Amino acid sequence: LALPARSAEFREEVDVLAVLPANNSYLFSIARVKPAVEYAQRRLRAEPGPYAGFTFNVRYENSGCGNEALFSVVDRSCGTKPDLILGPVCEYAAAQVVRLASHWDIPVVSAGALAAGFSDKHREYSHLTRVAPSYLKMAETFSKLFQRFGWKDALFVFDDDKEERNCYFALEGVHSILDAQDYKIDVLDVHSREMDAEEVIRHVYDSEVIIMCAGADIIRDIMLAAHRQKLTNGSNIFFNIELFNSSSYGNGSWRRGDKYDAEAKQAYAALNTVTLLRSVKAEFENFSMEVKKSTQKVGIYNHHGGENVNMFVEGFHDALLLYALALHEVMKNGSSKKDGAQITHRMWNRTFEGIAGQVSIDANGDRNGDFSVMAMTDQEAGTFQVVMNYFGVNETIQMLPGFNRERFTLKGRHHMSFQENPS
Amino acid sequence: LALPARSAEFREEVDVLAVLPANNSYLFSIARVKPAVEYAQRRLRAEPGPYAGFTFNVRYENSGCGNEALFSVVDRSCGTKPDLILGPVCEYAAAQVVRLASHWDIPVVSAGALAAGFSDKHREYSHLTRVAPSYLKMAETFSKLFQRFGWKDALFVFDDDKEERNCYFALEGVHSILDAQDYKIDVLDVHSREMDAEEVIRHVYDSEVIIMCAGADIIRDIMLAAHRQKLTNGSNIFFNIELFNSSSYGNGSWRRGDKYDAEAKQAYAALNTVTLLRSVKAEFENFSMEVKKSTQKVGIYNHHGGENVNMFVEGFHDALLLYALALHEVMKNGSSKKDGAQITHRMWNRTFEGIAGQVSIDANGDRNGDFSVMAMTDQEAGTFQVVMNYFGVNETIQMLPGFNRERFTLKGRHHMSFQENPS
Repeated sequence: LALPARSAEFREEVDVLAVLPANNSYLFSIARVKPAVEYAQRRLRAEPGPYAGFTFNVRYENSGCGNEALFSVVDRSCGTKPDLILGPVCEYAAAQVVRLASHWDIPVVSAGALAAGFSDKHREYSHLTRVAPSYLKMAETFSKLFQRFGWKDALFVFDDDKEERNCYFALEGVHSILDAQDYKIDVLDVHSREMDAEEVIRHVYDSEVIIMCAGADIIRDIMLAAHRQKLTNGSNIFFNIELFNSSSYGNGSWRRGDKYDAEAKQAYAALNTVTLLRSVKAEFENFSMEVKKSTQKVGIYNHHGGENVNMFVEGFHDALLLYALALHEVMKNGSSKKDGAQITHRMWNRTFEGIAGQVSIDANGDRNGDFSVMAMTDQEAGTFQVVMNYFGVNETIQMLPGFNRERFTLKGRHHMSFQENPS
Repeated sequence: LALPARSAEFREEVDVLAVLPANNSYLFSIARVKPAVEYAQRRLRAEPGPYAGFTFNVRYENSGCGNEALFSVVDRSCGTKPDLILGPVCEYAAAQVVRLASHWDIPVVSAGALAAGFSDKHREYSHLTRVAPSYLKMAETFSKLFQRFGWKDALFVFDDDKEERNCYFALEGVHSILDAQDYKIDVLDVHSREMDAEEVIRHVYDSEVIIMCAGADIIRDIMLAAHRQKLTNGSNIFFNIELFNSSSYGNGSWRRGDKYDAEAKQAYAALNTVTLLRSVKAEFENFSMEVKKSTQKVGIYNHHGGENVNMFVEGFHDALLLYALALHEVMKNGSSKKDGAQITHRMWNRTFEGIAGQVSIDANGDRNGDFSVMAMTDQEAGTFQVVMNYFGVNETIQMLPGFNRERFTLKGRHHMSFQENPS
């Protein structure tokens, strides 16, 4: 009687360099991402089948959020170069690392590098695969909404910190898509000046749709000022972008415990939040628990109801799966882990089962994105619900029970000529 | 009887990595700069005295004008890191290399990296010494002229190629200085649109001083259009920036052999060219001849009266001298060539004798610059001469015999309120 041996078509040791911040203030810090990557390593090892022979040796290096990332990669790669780089997430860190990795023929898989510039894979970013939806993917949501509801122009209000520049890059993506479709766009950076809600409001009059990306306090000040000027009655449509419910992008809550709470609750009835669509499947619960246990062991607790698992954490888990899929195919094809270009291209234009659901990577190596629009559905309680979903793979919008057409219809604008475009 | 032995206080081998373009279309290509560096190597070896014991082993690597520079440095530095990096010149190439070198504690001396951003030596560019005057130094010339002649506003017309961006960076420097002094500045990039001289002229009406950086044909078209609109009679002051008399910045000549030559000659009577002040001393002739011989050996001939020796070639010669001075002091101090930070700081805030004259490095590690303003002094022949010099070290302007106060005095402007500021 022969027990079935663990089948392993190929045996291969893969050296992985994960380049992420050591600082836990980042949602994608080493301590947060590591448990997810380890979960994926265990899974790949334990499952009998094509990946059982792969061993991933993962080394973690501090990327900071800037130049340090490149220094880490260079200083650690002189002896032997890694076979795969995970991260960096921050744009300025990623740009430098991806360039060098592409030059070295090493695949880079990141749940970050979300800026539009990374979409050009023909040159310096040839080896980059993005397992989280980029800002251009998010921009498709706005493009679809503009088409659907016949809006014609927008004002972008954003807080450009000139360091990591998340809000700048987020709106750059939206700008790039809407501008190409000939929508008129004004932009207003509220960072360089003393933030002045009254001044923002003067600009609001000239545009139909206001798309904001800024910290929670700035958003609240603007919504309060808009409400006082009676601009929250349908003469304008307000959005804020809040992908991760983190301080990097703002925080949708109107509540502060100050004397303006009641007024803010009314104002926020006109605010729509664009966020990542989060889906959950049975297996996810187990993953989430393990990540939580591991991060708590190193002293990271998410107060304020924050989640342990976010798009970055999921993404880096899925990154290892995707790489294993591609490497297996490349080896079956007679090539090796050293053919970074081929492995990279095998990761593109395919759909696979990630930890939280299906992950679809487009032909350009960028993940298709699903996004939700949240709106206040209970004006008494001031609570928000998802009212629409946008599915990137087939570019469709789904209306949910809380959806109210009125809310997205412009009313009482001078010179307004409503026009329903084909959607 | 003892012959005097060649005295050498210290013996040291210095590994130098010169990172410059292989492509000879650059004024600072390897083939052009190498003879100058070799001249300096021979000189340092031959002269008895403090540097006789230094041996410089110089390796040349292709920098291209972009990412390639970093790749060259990384790929060549894994085994042993160089003690000194010469170059890169192009801004985007230099940014990456200087960051990494600063991280590695390796001094970088360049006759390029002229953009304003490199002036911040407190962070990522800590180990950069610039032996050619940067764009900010050039900008001082304009600042002095504005003060002296009481001009109040400017229009910048430039051709931003979005690749090397010489004209963009040149005017960025001027912008940064004039803007800080509260002059009103308009900018017009003539690259992104079909170049339309008429459109440029519409902008010219609103500004007193027009500062241009663009190719020779664009400058000529604009000057012709300005002349036809009678804007060359003193209602505006026109400058073009032409630091190296190279195609990167334009070329002051009005002559094309077409039917507009006569008109262009009249128009150019109102054009002033800002360029580097070139000084010549006796020893320079020998250096220049040797460089010429060497470059011709590899097939580089400068037609059109171009010179063999330019600021870059001189600069990299002087770079080796300056480094030797600093290294000698550091070693006397008991330290070694491995203390890149100390060597770097020893190169700063000092004056030494370069191949073409005195070189003064300011306390921030940037060379003080001398610039000339050229103007047409013979309207019959249409020939240009230097009419003013600006000396960076003591921030003074020198008027030469060809200088004519009239030429720099605004006349016949509406709303003009001439005001002589203290200079």
